[in-house]
Amino acid sequence: MPPPVLEEVLGALLRAKNLTLALGESCTGGLVGQRITSVPGSSDYFLLSVVTYSNEMKQTILNVPHSLLVKEGAVSAPVAEAMATGALQVADSDIGAGITGIAGPSGGAPEKPVGLVFVAVSSKKGEARIEQFQFDGARKEVRDQAADAALQMIIEEAEKL
Amino acid sequence: MPPPVLEEVLGALLRAKNLTLALGESCTGGLVGQRITSVPGSSDYFLLSVVTYSNEMKQTILNVPHSLLVKEGAVSAPVAEAMATGALQVADSDIGAGITGIAGPSGGAPEKPVGLVFVAVSSKKGEARIEQFQFDGARKEVRDQAADAALQMIIEEAEKL
Repeated sequence: MPPPVLEEVLGALLRAKNLTLALGESCTGGLVGQRITSVPGSSDYFLLSVVTYSNEMKQTILNVPHSLLVKEGAVSAPVAEAMATGALQVADSDIGAGITGIAGPSGGAPEKPVGLVFVAVSSKKGEARIEQFQFDGARKEVRDQAADAALQMIIEEAEKL
Repeated sequence: MPPPVLEEVLGALLRAKNLTLALGESCTGGLVGQRITSVPGSSDYFLLSVVTYSNEMKQTILNVPHSLLVKEGAVSAPVAEAMATGALQVADSDIGAGITGIAGPSGGAPEKPVGLVFVAVSSKKGEARIEQFQFDGARKEVRDQAADAALQMIIEEAEKL
């Protein structure tokens, strides 16, 4: 038998602990939500993913402050955190996660190259955890690795709750 | 060369016509957004996907009326239309699409069996178009066919604009 995939591990954990989850996705474009909801019965613990592909949508729906987007840029640790917290608050979930990055092939810059991804996970208990990644590969590989990282971090947060 | 996939056809069309798109997804769980954003440069025309896996999120973010969810059920033509229109209005996009259905394996009922999917596409011009589908297969196959149907209907709507 193949080992269980991350979304199945996460689903079993959220179900066992009676926890709910909401996401704010940017560079993954819905991939994290799609993977989580590929598991039958995921509607029991998965509430929401907001895929925001513009600064305005990050502000309007996830309540990311305009000043933060201007000062730090959409691809930054503070914006990832604000997306995680925004998703958690909008959905009133136990856990929120935010994913923002540069999937490429365009959009990179010397200080923010293609493959740069920030993932933040927040919960109703304690401070958000934010990690910065630099992934290799083409657009699909960057997005797949970002989704794996987000799922892994959500699992680790759920294990603590 | 393989034929271009639906999301590439859609992307080229939206770009050529300078149109923007927003989604409200339920049974596809982010799959449609993920496919659209797999195309490099899709941030030029793709604004938002709201993946709502609860009635409350459909109401809160997509402004689907509570009375409609109670009277018609979340998997219904009127709710698909309200999700499409809600996404369009929230994002102020040119086109909005809503996808709701029963991906299975659980959640089916005699009057609403597994594989039943409603897709609605609305635009700033004219009435929404709503289609009902009955797809065969397991959860993945139902979701893949629902995503294909949604992408095809969005293409057809964009061609008219």
